[in-house]
Amino acid sequence: MEVEVLKLFRVDLTNKKVKIQEVPQAYAALGGRALTSKIILDEVDPNCNPLGKKNKLVFAPGLLSGTSAPSSGRLSVGGKSPLTGTIKESNAGGVASQKLARLGIKALILEGIADEWQVLKISKDGVELLDALDVVGKGNYETGDVLRGKFGEKAGVISIGPAGEHKMSSASIAVADMEGRPVRHAGRGGLGAVLGSKKVKAMVIDDQGAPGVEVKDKEAFKEAAQAFSKMLLAHPVCGQGLPTYGTAVLINVLNEAGGLPTENFKTGRFDGADKISGETMYDTINARGGKPTHACHPGCVMRCSQVYHDEKGEYLTAGFEYETIWAFGANCKIDNLDALAKLDRYCDDLGLDTIEMGVTLGVAMEGGVLPFGDYEGALKLFSEDVANATPLGRILGQGAEFTGTAYGVTRIPTVKRQAMPAYDPRAVKGVGVTYATTTMGADHTAGYSVTANILKVGGFVDPLKNDGQIDLSRNLQIATAAVDSTGLCLFVAFAVLDVPEALPKVVDMLNAQYGLTLTLDDVTELGKTVLKWEREFNKKAGFTNAHDRMPEFIVEEGCPPHNTTFDFTGEQLDSVFSVIEDVAMDQAAASKE
Amino acid sequence: MEVEVLKLFRVDLTNKKVKIQEVPQAYAALGGRALTSKIILDEVDPNCNPLGKKNKLVFAPGLLSGTSAPSSGRLSVGGKSPLTGTIKESNAGGVASQKLARLGIKALILEGIADEWQVLKISKDGVELLDALDVVGKGNYETGDVLRGKFGEKAGVISIGPAGEHKMSSASIAVADMEGRPVRHAGRGGLGAVLGSKKVKAMVIDDQGAPGVEVKDKEAFKEAAQAFSKMLLAHPVCGQGLPTYGTAVLINVLNEAGGLPTENFKTGRFDGADKISGETMYDTINARGGKPTHACHPGCVMRCSQVYHDEKGEYLTAGFEYETIWAFGANCKIDNLDALAKLDRYCDDLGLDTIEMGVTLGVAMEGGVLPFGDYEGALKLFSEDVANATPLGRILGQGAEFTGTAYGVTRIPTVKRQAMPAYDPRAVKGVGVTYATTTMGADHTAGYSVTANILKVGGFVDPLKNDGQIDLSRNLQIATAAVDSTGLCLFVAFAVLDVPEALPKVVDMLNAQYGLTLTLDDVTELGKTVLKWEREFNKKAGFTNAHDRMPEFIVEEGCPPHNTTFDFTGEQLDSVFSVIEDVAMDQAAASKE
Repeated sequence: MEVEVLKLFRVDLTNKKVKIQEVPQAYAALGGRALTSKIILDEVDPNCNPLGKKNKLVFAPGLLSGTSAPSSGRLSVGGKSPLTGTIKESNAGGVASQKLARLGIKALILEGIADEWQVLKISKDGVELLDALDVVGKGNYETGDVLRGKFGEKAGVISIGPAGEHKMSSASIAVADMEGRPVRHAGRGGLGAVLGSKKVKAMVIDDQGAPGVEVKDKEAFKEAAQAFSKMLLAHPVCGQGLPTYGTAVLINVLNEAGGLPTENFKTGRFDGADKISGETMYDTINARGGKPTHACHPGCVMRCSQVYHDEKGEYLTAGFEYETIWAFGANCKIDNLDALAKLDRYCDDLGLDTIEMGVTLGVAMEGGVLPFGDYEGALKLFSEDVANATPLGRILGQGAEFTGTAYGVTRIPTVKRQAMPAYDPRAVKGVGVTYATTTMGADHTAGYSVTANILKVGGFVDPLKNDGQIDLSRNLQIATAAVDSTGLCLFVAFAVLDVPEALPKVVDMLNAQYGLTLTLDDVTELGKTVLKWEREFNKKAGFTNAHDRMPEFIVEEGCPPHNTTFDFTGEQLDSVFSVIEDVAMDQAAASKE
Repeated sequence: MEVEVLKLFRVDLTNKKVKIQEVPQAYAALGGRALTSKIILDEVDPNCNPLGKKNKLVFAPGLLSGTSAPSSGRLSVGGKSPLTGTIKESNAGGVASQKLARLGIKALILEGIADEWQVLKISKDGVELLDALDVVGKGNYETGDVLRGKFGEKAGVISIGPAGEHKMSSASIAVADMEGRPVRHAGRGGLGAVLGSKKVKAMVIDDQGAPGVEVKDKEAFKEAAQAFSKMLLAHPVCGQGLPTYGTAVLINVLNEAGGLPTENFKTGRFDGADKISGETMYDTINARGGKPTHACHPGCVMRCSQVYHDEKGEYLTAGFEYETIWAFGANCKIDNLDALAKLDRYCDDLGLDTIEMGVTLGVAMEGGVLPFGDYEGALKLFSEDVANATPLGRILGQGAEFTGTAYGVTRIPTVKRQAMPAYDPRAVKGVGVTYATTTMGADHTAGYSVTANILKVGGFVDPLKNDGQIDLSRNLQIATAAVDSTGLCLFVAFAVLDVPEALPKVVDMLNAQYGLTLTLDDVTELGKTVLKWEREFNKKAGFTNAHDRMPEFIVEEGCPPHNTTFDFTGEQLDSVFSVIEDVAMDQAAASKE
């Protein structure tokens, strides 16, 4: 198979034109998040309306996607977020990243707004714009079924559900897994609404006859990939915890630590935790003939996904994550695992971020829309209101901040209008620093300090104290920005943080694939650079240090059982980035002299 | 009557405590907007939740309120706005300002949050906190009736309707007029929601036995006041246009100029303008036995208000302004004056800003909630949805930006989330500069360039060209900040801008009242200082030049019939304030040397 040079695919939806362009030299060493963020910074007016014609949506496989590197199938999606107003990178598993990479697509850039709903067909022959009449209005499950029926069972599908069509700020972009299920999502920040605003319902990726990914030094690559794979499998979290219980293993861990946000972040412990724990899920899945272990994309060795069956033993959902179980579970005081699985299924099908929606539901409960614990009411909100975009459904679909505003709630757990994930920032302070300061709005994956705070991976930093959290969050944010550029699943970080030999293997893979001579320092530099690009965009969009702050109640209310508050000073929070940026300025000044 | 020294009245709602404090020297020469903005800057955390316990609400009569100065009964209300997130001063007519001034209240500061709904009774004996059970849930009309029944017909009433109780971001604070009607509102920026968040339903002001306002040099004051009054009466706008047709005289004027925003700011001319014009209103009022001319507070010589009767000759509404008639009329393509009067009545009674709600309705119409022109549907939205706080009512009550977001509308005419008033910024470019740059979010009163652009008051600056608009807006914003501090109605500006002898009379009144030796320059300096305080607050709250910008469609779409766009550069817009602030910094630097 002839290997072709990577290209940028640019789709002008307004004029229905596709351009295939050479990759500029400046983008050659970028992939995933680094590439989406750089293209957005270079090409999108930071003050544009996120749902207008001037916003763009960029899909970029990671640098290692499409190779045999283990767990390297993450797809980055970038744009200006309609939820936060910031730059946004949201990444997802599923099969799309590897297929795009094999087709030689360095990045797919969607521009403008189509006049009618489109399906994009992406294959070795380029990009075709097709009428979307047969899937518009349909959920992600049916959309995938129809499109695979038409374009072949092996086609990869990226799609939005009704939420994205209605431009809800919580709308996700679904990426089908190996079985064609729309259970992997670029969930955060409402990028599904951006795809909806462009009138793109779905993209079908057919990689038959694709040139594949060029690896310059195949032998060196294979050696590094195998060694890295071994390290992942040998690590207790990557090789045992995740493959056995999935991410839901964290329910009991965080509950024990008093950091499992419960009743809309009122306390850090949930009485019903045991009923929704990873261990309970494991037993339930096994009893019903589901799969406790499942990979979301080919070549993943951590296999943290699972297939969850209902009481009758029939498929209900997959990719049923800790965050989802927590958000609708502890946070809404729902301790019924089947109800949570159904809520997960609704979010997958309607195309919604489960973190945002779970926190939204908790805020709605606090606002009196329905009682805490009322899972039947919750299911009805999704099946009737969100699905049909009733006024109440439109409120909920816009997320936690919006819903709290509509109902006069002042305890809204968001930063930059994005809902906080499953770790109370008062009891897991390192991740709180990340929520406050990341370029993305409240986001745990941007700098997952839960590692050292709770899991004692990569050292230990007391989760209840402020000491060391700023440095921890900064270092993790830098490392994450780099990892998110490789296409590797962020979960490799558990091994990378614990095993000194692991990161060099990643560098070896990159060098072998691209014929480069990167060092570990280059990886750190890449991470810093990506963060600086993102902060530059945000600054131009009007963001300042005043936005890197927690909501009032997180600062003022103690979180039981520890009763700690989030009590970093503004200056401390600002030092997460001022350190990086001041050094950069010093260097720039020095180089001028 | 013994004259007492002015005091600050501070009500701690959380602890139900009232403190009466000496006025600090720094506040002695401040009143109205200057005082509310300074107290908010000094005492409120710019990053606080506007509906939380850390926000405050300050009521301050103007410097001249309570005296015989003509048209000096404006009451300033200040706080952090839940709509815009900026500092906010919103002022209103009605009887409250003069009564508060006569009671010796320099400013009334509400702090904290009460546990149950309160009515505050303010009299010469201080402030009493009373149970509000008999008025909670009621509209402003009934609330006023109940409270006057209880506390006397002469009591002044300040209240919120259900919108404020539900913390809707469009909620206003109603101030009763001389007949006890809740038709004067501190409308903009949702300060009614702040009062609601504090659980204060109403304030009753009984000025029986009040000490009255001290005037140091009564003779000089009387002379200046009479001269100023004469100048107002001799001016064609203040003395003839406003008293005859009210503000609605502008419908035909702006329509002719092509600057009357129509169909959610799609064009600048409305086919049905004649049916809703000031002239038509005048005839209708006269035919039905209403009052075409009416003063909103004692001593107003411009009397721009009116009393509008329905077809049966019964009272329907009063204070039925140009902005309201435009917002629900041309902007929503409703050409039925009676329907507009009913919408005005709903807003007065529910306690809503008519500008925000009219623009919201236009956005909802664009979003497909109801067709343009559907006044029956519009009335139902208010009587059923907003009044009962249904999900749709909660969406609408949060204003235009919120409603547009819920319905995926990208043409949302707001700046800093506040709806644009009745002048298309593309066809009346000077007021567009004000919308973009004022500290308040889109607001015409903050720098009413319509004067020189359209009315040829204070010179002429071509409304369709950029030349001169930046300076015009800056100068008017400075002058306005000063006028808003005096308690004088902004409409005196028509005379002040045209008659060189008018402003000196204002200065004479201030000097005579307070025993000061202010000059004209001091007035300008006060205006600049107020703007700097407000910008300082906003900057700390996270606002930057990036927020002093127009929405995308105002920049990109031409506005018929002139087809002009809003095409100032960011640098030009930033120069509105950089000129003031750079000079200030230069002076500070010079004084240090």
